[in-house]
Amino acid sequence: MPVSRDIFLEALAARAERVGQWLLTEDDVPVTLGRLRQTARAYVERPGKRLRPAILLFACAAVGGDEEQALPAATAVELFHNWSLVHDDIIDQDDFRRGQPTAHRLAATLAGQELGLAPAAAGHYGQSAAILAGDLLLARAIRLLLRCRDRNVPPEVVLDLAARMAGHLAPELIDGEMIDVECSHRPLGQVGENDILPMLERKTGALLGYAAAAGACIGRGRTYDQCPEARSLDAFARACGVAFQLQDDILGLVGDERRLGKPVGSDLREGKATVPLLHALRHAAPGQRERLGQIVGNPRAVPGELAFATALVRELGGIDHARNLARTYLDTARKHLDSLPGTPARAWIEAWADFLSDRSF
Amino acid sequence: MPVSRDIFLEALAARAERVGQWLLTEDDVPVTLGRLRQTARAYVERPGKRLRPAILLFACAAVGGDEEQALPAATAVELFHNWSLVHDDIIDQDDFRRGQPTAHRLAATLAGQELGLAPAAAGHYGQSAAILAGDLLLARAIRLLLRCRDRNVPPEVVLDLAARMAGHLAPELIDGEMIDVECSHRPLGQVGENDILPMLERKTGALLGYAAAAGACIGRGRTYDQCPEARSLDAFARACGVAFQLQDDILGLVGDERRLGKPVGSDLREGKATVPLLHALRHAAPGQRERLGQIVGNPRAVPGELAFATALVRELGGIDHARNLARTYLDTARKHLDSLPGTPARAWIEAWADFLSDRSF
Repeated sequence: MPVSRDIFLEALAARAERVGQWLLTEDDVPVTLGRLRQTARAYVERPGKRLRPAILLFACAAVGGDEEQALPAATAVELFHNWSLVHDDIIDQDDFRRGQPTAHRLAATLAGQELGLAPAAAGHYGQSAAILAGDLLLARAIRLLLRCRDRNVPPEVVLDLAARMAGHLAPELIDGEMIDVECSHRPLGQVGENDILPMLERKTGALLGYAAAAGACIGRGRTYDQCPEARSLDAFARACGVAFQLQDDILGLVGDERRLGKPVGSDLREGKATVPLLHALRHAAPGQRERLGQIVGNPRAVPGELAFATALVRELGGIDHARNLARTYLDTARKHLDSLPGTPARAWIEAWADFLSDRSF
Repeated sequence: MPVSRDIFLEALAARAERVGQWLLTEDDVPVTLGRLRQTARAYVERPGKRLRPAILLFACAAVGGDEEQALPAATAVELFHNWSLVHDDIIDQDDFRRGQPTAHRLAATLAGQELGLAPAAAGHYGQSAAILAGDLLLARAIRLLLRCRDRNVPPEVVLDLAARMAGHLAPELIDGEMIDVECSHRPLGQVGENDILPMLERKTGALLGYAAAAGACIGRGRTYDQCPEARSLDAFARACGVAFQLQDDILGLVGDERRLGKPVGSDLREGKATVPLLHALRHAAPGQRERLGQIVGNPRAVPGELAFATALVRELGGIDHARNLARTYLDTARKHLDSLPGTPARAWIEAWADFLSDRSF
C-alpha cells in the first residue's frame, strides 16, 4: 500500500535526525585543530534530507532487517557523500553550498578572522584545510562503516561492505568527478550524452546504489554476491540517481529559484554541459546554434538573454528529451523492485524514488 | 647478530621489488580515464626504498609470521604514503618530487599536451586531477589492506587493521599536515618545538608506527590490543620516524645536495620552521636574530647569505641540539625493542632503524 506524502516525510525526518544525532555524539576523530574539525563538520551539520542514509535504512527494513544495526553504515554514506562535496567544491571553485559558504571558503574566513591572514594566504589556507577535511571525511566514512561490526553484522559482511566502498564505489565516484573535470574543459560541441550519462551514473548513481545495496546486505546478514536483493536495490537506486540528476538539470532551466538554491539559468551562464542543452545544440539550425553559443558560458549574459536561450532549448525539444530520459530511467529502476517482497517497508522505497525524482520538496 | 650493510640493502631491495611488482600486477582500479590513472600512479612507479612496506614485512617476520601473508598490507601502506604526498605537494605548491614533476604538475602537463589547454586551465586541471588521484590512492590503500583476508589473516584482525588505518592513522596524519599548514602561515617567532615535534610524529612517525604494528598483528594473527609486540614496534617505529625527520632537517642545512634531492639551504630560503632554526632563533642575540630574519624566508637570499645563516645556526647550537634530540628519540626507540625475542628478523629491524636514521644511503 503506498504511503502518504506526510507519513513519508515524517519517516524521512526521523531517520535524518537519528543519523544527525549519531554523527554528533560519536565524533571521536582524534584531531587537535579546531579549524580543521570545523571545516570537516561544516556540511555535516547543515540541515539536509540525508537521502543516502535514508535509502540505506529503508532497504535494510525492506528485506526484514533491523535499522539500528545499519545505523553506522547509514552515517558512513552521509560522510562519504560529504567528502565528495568538499573536494568537488574546491575543484569547481564554488563559493556556496546550500546557501552557506563552501568548506574552503569557510576555512579561508576562519584563517582571516582567527589567524589574521591576508586574503591570498587565507585562500591558500582555506583550500589546504578543505583538501585535508575531505580526506578526513573519506577516512572517517570507512571507519564508521566498520563500526557495523559492533552491532553484530557478521565480519565477512562488514569486510565486504568496506571492500566495496573503498574498492568499487570510491573509484567509480572519483572517475565520475574526473569525467566532469574533463568535460568542463572541453568545448560543448565536443561533449555528448555518452559522456554525461555515465558521469551522472558515477557521480550520483553509484553512491545511491551502494547505499541501497548496503542496507540489504546488513538486513540479510549476507555479502553482496550472496544477496540478490542487494543487486536489485543497487540497480534500482543507481537508475534513480541518474533520473534525479536529469531532473536537476531540467530544474536548472525551468525550476523555482528558492527551491533550487541558485539562480535559474546559472547552468547556462556557466556553460555547463547538460542533457537538455546538448540535445538542443544537436538539433539547432546554424543560426540558432550561433545565438546559443553567444549566451551559453558567457558570464556577462543578462537575464533576458538567459530566458531567450532557455526558450530555445525548450523549443528544440531539450527539456522534453531530458524528461523522457529521466522517465525511462525511473521505469527501469522500478522494474528492479519487482523481485522484492511486498513488505510495508518496500512502500518507503517506492516513496523515496517518487520523492527523489519529483525534486519539488 | 647484526646484519651487514650489504646484506641489509639486498633484503630491502628484495622487498621493494616484491611490493612494486604486486602494485603493478594487482592494479584493478575501475577508472576509465588514463590521465587520472597516470596521475595516481606517478609516485608509485618511481623507484624508491619503500621503507614503510619494508618495516611492515620485517616486523611480521620478527614475530615469526609469514611475510607473504602481509604483502597486501605492505602495499597498502605504500599507497597510503603516496596519497599523503600527492595532497601535501598540492598544499605546498611544490613542483618536484624526487627530481620529477609533482602529481599536479604532471597532470597539468598532460592537460596541456593532450587536451591543448592553456596554462591557467591546465593548472586548474592538474590540481583537480591530483586532488582526485590522492583520494583514489587513499581509498585503494584501504582496499588493498582488506585483501589480507584473501591470505588467511583472521577477519577480526583485518577489521582491526582497517579500523586503525581509517580511524586513527589517517586522522593523525591529516592533523599533522594541518599543523604544518598552520605553522607555515605563522611568523617563525610564534612557532615552537612543541608545535614541530608533535607535527613530525604525526606526519611521519604515525605511519611508520602503524606499519610496524600491522606487520606484528598479521604475523601473530592478533588484533593490536591483544598483541604486545605490535605496541612495542609501534612505539619503536614512531620514535624512529621523528628521529628521521630531525635528521632530515639537519641534512637540509649541512647535507649533500645530490643525496638530498634539493639545494642545501632551501629550507632556510623557504623560511621553514625546523628544530635547528628555532633553537638558533631562541638563543640568538638581538642583532643575530635580526640578521637571520633578513635571510630566512627571503626568496632572493643568495648562497653567501644562506651559508652565513647556516653557520650562525650551527654556532648557536641549533644543529647539535637537533642531533641530540634525534639521538634521544633513537635511544627511546631501541628500548622498545628489548621486549622482542632475539630472532634473526629482529636484526633486520635494527638495521632498518640504522638505515633510517643515518640517511646517508
